[in-house]
Amino acid sequence: MTYRAPLKDMLFVMNELAGLAQISQLPGYEDATPDTAQAVLEEAAKFNEQVVAPLNRAGDIQPSSWKDGVVTTTPGFRDAFRQFGEGGWQGVLHPADFGGQGLPKLVATPCNEMLNTANLSFALCPLLTDGAIEALLTAGTDAQKSLFLPRLISGEWTGTMNLTEPQAGSDLAAVRTRAEPQGDGTYKVFGTKIFITYGEHDMADNIVHLVLARTPDAPEGVKGISLFIVPKFLVNADGSLGARNDVECVSIEHKLGIKASPTAVLQFGDHGGAIGTLVGEENRGLEYMFIMMNAARFSVGMQGIAVSERAYQQAVAYARERVQSRPVDGSAREGVTIIHHPDVKRMLMTMRALIEGARSVAYVAAAASDVAHQHPDESVRRQNMALYEFLVPVVKGWSTELSIDVTSLGVQVHGGMGFIEETGAAQHYRDARILPIYEGTTAIQANDLVGRKTVRDGGAVARAICASIAETENRLGEHGGAPFLAVQAQLRQGREALEAVVRFVVDNAKGDPNAVFAGSVPYLKLCGIVLSGWQLARAMLAADAKRAEDPAFHGAKIATAHFFGQHILSQASGLRAAIVDGAEPVKAMSAEQF
Amino acid sequence: MTYRAPLKDMLFVMNELAGLAQISQLPGYEDATPDTAQAVLEEAAKFNEQVVAPLNRAGDIQPSSWKDGVVTTTPGFRDAFRQFGEGGWQGVLHPADFGGQGLPKLVATPCNEMLNTANLSFALCPLLTDGAIEALLTAGTDAQKSLFLPRLISGEWTGTMNLTEPQAGSDLAAVRTRAEPQGDGTYKVFGTKIFITYGEHDMADNIVHLVLARTPDAPEGVKGISLFIVPKFLVNADGSLGARNDVECVSIEHKLGIKASPTAVLQFGDHGGAIGTLVGEENRGLEYMFIMMNAARFSVGMQGIAVSERAYQQAVAYARERVQSRPVDGSAREGVTIIHHPDVKRMLMTMRALIEGARSVAYVAAAASDVAHQHPDESVRRQNMALYEFLVPVVKGWSTELSIDVTSLGVQVHGGMGFIEETGAAQHYRDARILPIYEGTTAIQANDLVGRKTVRDGGAVARAICASIAETENRLGEHGGAPFLAVQAQLRQGREALEAVVRFVVDNAKGDPNAVFAGSVPYLKLCGIVLSGWQLARAMLAADAKRAEDPAFHGAKIATAHFFGQHILSQASGLRAAIVDGAEPVKAMSAEQF
Repeated sequence: MTYRAPLKDMLFVMNELAGLAQISQLPGYEDATPDTAQAVLEEAAKFNEQVVAPLNRAGDIQPSSWKDGVVTTTPGFRDAFRQFGEGGWQGVLHPADFGGQGLPKLVATPCNEMLNTANLSFALCPLLTDGAIEALLTAGTDAQKSLFLPRLISGEWTGTMNLTEPQAGSDLAAVRTRAEPQGDGTYKVFGTKIFITYGEHDMADNIVHLVLARTPDAPEGVKGISLFIVPKFLVNADGSLGARNDVECVSIEHKLGIKASPTAVLQFGDHGGAIGTLVGEENRGLEYMFIMMNAARFSVGMQGIAVSERAYQQAVAYARERVQSRPVDGSAREGVTIIHHPDVKRMLMTMRALIEGARSVAYVAAAASDVAHQHPDESVRRQNMALYEFLVPVVKGWSTELSIDVTSLGVQVHGGMGFIEETGAAQHYRDARILPIYEGTTAIQANDLVGRKTVRDGGAVARAICASIAETENRLGEHGGAPFLAVQAQLRQGREALEAVVRFVVDNAKGDPNAVFAGSVPYLKLCGIVLSGWQLARAMLAADAKRAEDPAFHGAKIATAHFFGQHILSQASGLRAAIVDGAEPVKAMSAEQF
Repeated sequence: MTYRAPLKDMLFVMNELAGLAQISQLPGYEDATPDTAQAVLEEAAKFNEQVVAPLNRAGDIQPSSWKDGVVTTTPGFRDAFRQFGEGGWQGVLHPADFGGQGLPKLVATPCNEMLNTANLSFALCPLLTDGAIEALLTAGTDAQKSLFLPRLISGEWTGTMNLTEPQAGSDLAAVRTRAEPQGDGTYKVFGTKIFITYGEHDMADNIVHLVLARTPDAPEGVKGISLFIVPKFLVNADGSLGARNDVECVSIEHKLGIKASPTAVLQFGDHGGAIGTLVGEENRGLEYMFIMMNAARFSVGMQGIAVSERAYQQAVAYARERVQSRPVDGSAREGVTIIHHPDVKRMLMTMRALIEGARSVAYVAAAASDVAHQHPDESVRRQNMALYEFLVPVVKGWSTELSIDVTSLGVQVHGGMGFIEETGAAQHYRDARILPIYEGTTAIQANDLVGRKTVRDGGAVARAICASIAETENRLGEHGGAPFLAVQAQLRQGREALEAVVRFVVDNAKGDPNAVFAGSVPYLKLCGIVLSGWQLARAMLAADAKRAEDPAFHGAKIATAHFFGQHILSQASGLRAAIVDGAEPVKAMSAEQF
């Protein structure tokens, strides 16, 4: 078994930190009792451990390949994807009206995590399909919904997001793809899109491309972008497949990692025009795309946690097995398994603490999203939506940045064997490297965090979070005991650093934007660290209350929170210095001086 | 041009920080005037930029390959290595008596850096050969020296280090390779060695394997290891080549990076025994191997700086060229080159600051080694040797750990293009990953730093360094001005953190080794950060004094030091917390709890 779902930790976080019991009392989620959720997770674990995880290495060795416009995926992917669809896994989150299970995001998120830990490359196809489903749910006509949604949710068809063009990486204002109205309600689409994940493959009968393009009279910039459905095969009114559309996969990329996931260059309209239909209103494409992107950004954050978990499990297994050198404390005269060496333990603790912290923040965010959608009280909904939206760039940016460090440590634990591809540890290190880049680089997440999530409300959400953190500090103080007081002290300095930074950001964003944005990524990291430390502090309190039930698990939770405090939260004051006093030398350098 | 040697910075560090003028007054180095050194560096730059650097990408695409025991290197490598030998580059550091140039390590080090920046995989062959030369210089007989050294120094032959065996990674006590005396002064060697860099190749006429093995009556453990010369081809007394020796390359590894450098599994003695001759005395092999390893560890540290420099140059070039998005300060209405975006500048500054800091520490260490070898006053020699030996694990551990972060940032600056192999940024990220592992992992460097370099002398060298740092703090204070005072404050808290940690390490290494070694790598990183910050602080003072001569260069130096202070030195107090108060949760976790 190369992967075992960390169900115990997942359920602990869902129940103790994210409030699953309360979520299951929201209107619409009455069936999602903690027992049901546990049963769903257990089924997901079985499927992902047994069907999806074993294909991960194969995908690296036999990546997707392209020939004459046709992409052949790794052997086994097609069958696994069929099982994925049949098992209802694409629909966990989506409405029962269209064939989904309609479960809360808090339940869908661990399922999502498991799928990604099992196989990052495989999971990208459902991830993009989720985005397409979200966009159609929000902006599609009833006809579009009934035509596309059931087939996307069943896994018969898959979806893609077509944003990027060669001249426009993250800058959507520069999109040039054209859509010409034909007078019959359809459009002809012309243009080139790059970096299209699962833009072509052999795992489903049809691919529903959601494409950003400009209509002839559209205004310049992002205000002139519309969203179109351009299916690989045209779809008849009864849902049956029609002619092949004029969209061609002209190549796929040779990448550092996630090699099984085909990254396509798509050419639209080289033979007369690709037929598309408008989603929602003209020139509102960016808005709809953000719906897809927000869902996708959260999911990419989960990918960071997921690949880190895989690297951690592999490193622990190796460290338990590899015998080398005597222990430094002289407790044995022979070599011991390396998990007994303090530095190996420190590396494993670092990996574990980062993962558990990020997982806790992400699941709490998922619960906030559920409350924001289903709570009867509008002010509660609004408050939770604001919290969720604050957390999305943090989940995306922080969980993916840490995945670089965690997968790198995973290699390091293996020593020389980690550098040999056959070992498999290197794959995670390569796979993870895309995560802080796609669906918006960490810098773009940080821009979002600064601009839309902090400055726009004058720091109100950030300050409300800090007030909640201070309450947890008080609870730690009331609890007492060395590890709790140590975490209290570290959490306090972290929260104070965050408060100072939020003030700096709010006060200077207008007057000195270059200073604020020179610290935007460190600000995002500070949020990631402090929020993770906060959730782990809550976790250690909950674990202590339940300690007798399972002393090994709850003891590990307390040790992990304590470790996080001393080794990771302790970096907060350094980040504060970097942000608040670190912009001058960045501004001092001209482009020529580099 | 894919690489331009940073001669200006190299010469600045040599002259202003490492005291080249004083080094050239040491007995034996009279010819190494600053002018000569500059001329040597300029020649090295030309050779490495024009001949070696263009082969770097080729080595990744067409790695060394194995067939039937024969290893074929990347096209172009053989010819480049011939030019390398003819140019005298293997001999820069080595004695003129055997054909070398006999230049100080301070001059050889930038040459070494350039070779590695040009091509990490290529440079490994000379790196290992250097180690073999050092070992023979120290422990070889006159006959061995005159037979092997001229040919190793000329590049006709190359050298290897054969330590690792399948069952014994870093644990040399577990070495099993046998050497049986034949009564004629030779030995027959039997065993398997793995991870042998350039253990087989086609770039030279012979390969001189230096092999650790046990004689029949040797004591157990590391005290029973001897060192043998086992050449690929036996060598006649006149230096001509004799029969093929019984050493066979049975395979090479499929690796994450440095693919052009063949990593061999060598089988000794499968056909009757490989003929070897003893180096030095029996059972003192470990001691001699440490000579090779110390030279190699310093050089691997330089590899970390070197690959970081390559990644930095590529990232700067891309950031100067790629146009995307408007500036955040509204200073342009169109997209600008991304080097104008504050976060891109921050990333480039991070890369640059880490590199320049590490380079300064390494060159200062090289100068200490020169003084330690050539100074007429024994107490000065001893003092400098102690400093050099303290710095070796820091140069090795810190410069290689940072290379992971720097090459990762190099990918990040490229955005999605960074993940495409064709771009080349990903190669550096892959290549760098071996550096914190081979020639002793970072944990092993940290053990050395704690045990032999800190505890053994009661922290005396570390405290002497801290006293020198405090002097630099005073100079910053006397100088005044915002950036200088900011660096003073950060340097002070860094130095105080280091002092506290040294006390902790010295006081607890015996009584609570698990606590000290749970913080050993963070201690090494703290040393790397504080020593780099110290050297950059010295650099900013020197740069300010010369500012008028070249305002752009010296201004960048000041900004870089300032940046290092706020963004990197500021992490010192967090590391102190991790080390001094962070061991309890590591100790609390049992192996089963992971």
